[in-house]
Amino acid sequence: MKAALIDPAGRIAEVVRRPTPLDGERTGEDVVAAVADLAARFAGAHPGIRPAAAGLLVPGQVDDDTGNLGWRDFPFRDRASAALGGPVSFSHDVRGAGEAEHRLGAAAPFRDTVVMAIGTGIAGAIFLDGRLHTGGGLAGEMGHSRVAEGPDCACGGRGCLEAVASAAAIARRYSALTGHSVPGAREVLERAQAGDPAATRIWESALDALALDLSHTVALLAPEAIVIGGGLSQAGDALFVPLAEKLDTILTFQRRPALLPARIGENAGVIRAALRARDLLAETAREPAL
Amino acid sequence: MKAALIDPAGRIAEVVRRPTPLDGERTGEDVVAAVADLAARFAGAHPGIRPAAAGLLVPGQVDDDTGNLGWRDFPFRDRASAALGGPVSFSHDVRGAGEAEHRLGAAAPFRDTVVMAIGTGIAGAIFLDGRLHTGGGLAGEMGHSRVAEGPDCACGGRGCLEAVASAAAIARRYSALTGHSVPGAREVLERAQAGDPAATRIWESALDALALDLSHTVALLAPEAIVIGGGLSQAGDALFVPLAEKLDTILTFQRRPALLPARIGENAGVIRAALRARDLLAETAREPAL
Repeated sequence: MKAALIDPAGRIAEVVRRPTPLDGERTGEDVVAAVADLAARFAGAHPGIRPAAAGLLVPGQVDDDTGNLGWRDFPFRDRASAALGGPVSFSHDVRGAGEAEHRLGAAAPFRDTVVMAIGTGIAGAIFLDGRLHTGGGLAGEMGHSRVAEGPDCACGGRGCLEAVASAAAIARRYSALTGHSVPGAREVLERAQAGDPAATRIWESALDALALDLSHTVALLAPEAIVIGGGLSQAGDALFVPLAEKLDTILTFQRRPALLPARIGENAGVIRAALRARDLLAETAREPAL
Repeated sequence: MKAALIDPAGRIAEVVRRPTPLDGERTGEDVVAAVADLAARFAGAHPGIRPAAAGLLVPGQVDDDTGNLGWRDFPFRDRASAALGGPVSFSHDVRGAGEAEHRLGAAAPFRDTVVMAIGTGIAGAIFLDGRLHTGGGLAGEMGHSRVAEGPDCACGGRGCLEAVASAAAIARRYSALTGHSVPGAREVLERAQAGDPAATRIWESALDALALDLSHTVALLAPEAIVIGGGLSQAGDALFVPLAEKLDTILTFQRRPALLPARIGENAGVIRAALRARDLLAETAREPAL
């Protein structure tokens, strides 16, 4: 869990990270308690800042309208609002980060964009004509599009983009191929750049899979830009230059989208959560401070 | 070319088909002349119906806003409007047929749908939150998403969905595989149903390619329904039942979209063109009848 206190000027006053409490059936209530504890901690440390609303973001399938976690039907927003005593907004973490990029970052100049996060998993936020397409909380799961015959994916599918090309998958696949455990995709890229054929093979196949998936997105939606964030985007030109070349090779008549690194960075999620919470305050009658 | 005269009650008074005049650089002007000729023919045959506007639909990449044919920058709408002496709307044929399905047909009950036409080619219209996404005239080209290693596609690409699974490709691939020329996909399906292994192989591989492409669309957009029209949809259950099964096999946690046959049928294009022309009249001050 990552929490930030945002002051009235929009500055981050403090960022706190703590492990998510995982306790089977009680996880939902435990997370709500942890949220309330974080709010109390911020209130004690920053008595001059009194939050008027909270913004929550969670991974997985989220219904932005009802504020429920689809995977367990836990009414997270309502429970958190009760625990905090104030208005709470609720959304998907990748869509949240995507909205930050869309409003303030690399996607801001465009009407039709896809913002992807490539890290442990792969998911994205889709903006068409300037509006987020949520698909009832189910859209943007391109990480679970089949792009190869394998390997198996944690979702139960086979050859999912996430199982081939996420930062975690790149490290995992290299370790499985060579027997040498590496901590992350960064080390695979460094080994490839040093001439390791196995690392080159894994890195190239990941970029091929990403290019193939992007080519489907381009054919279907014709976005003006595709913004890529998450851990893998830290590879910079080593990712973006060959990815654009591979995409160009697959495409024919289609317009080439700009491939851009995300700009907001690691705090995109909490910034967007704060923006959402502000939007909520603007929409509703002001309730008592938390 | 296909032209219809629509009366004030929305009924089709007459439908006419004629070959498109193809004459290199002069094709644009020749098509405009043919449009004017068709209008004059309708006026002579139906003196009681005086059209107030015309709706044009063309295949390929079309900019709905400027009314230009992207492939040759011919200002079709403006030239046709001058030739006809009245307001003219202009759009893409597949998007036009999709809009008819969206407004009046199988897609009408849904907010998020993809309407695909599978015939000589494959293209579609995407409706998200009830609105058509055009992508500047470039969206909906899933026919040119790569779904296999081959065969080569007319677009210059390789393994495009259209080169594997369009009605034309199914017939062409069967003929290439067996040396027996067949007129269309219908004959390939009939042979497969009669136990012809080559026909079964071609038909199944086409459905596999369609299911793979649909699985990407579902992961990315999570549409509530996918409506399929065009010649291949005439196969009915022989298409829709196994296609849903194959899609279900690829998908894991994703919501299954309803797979529905288009309802408007072969006149969807001209009906939508007429609806567009009516919309245009409602938007603009009424001009003299054509």
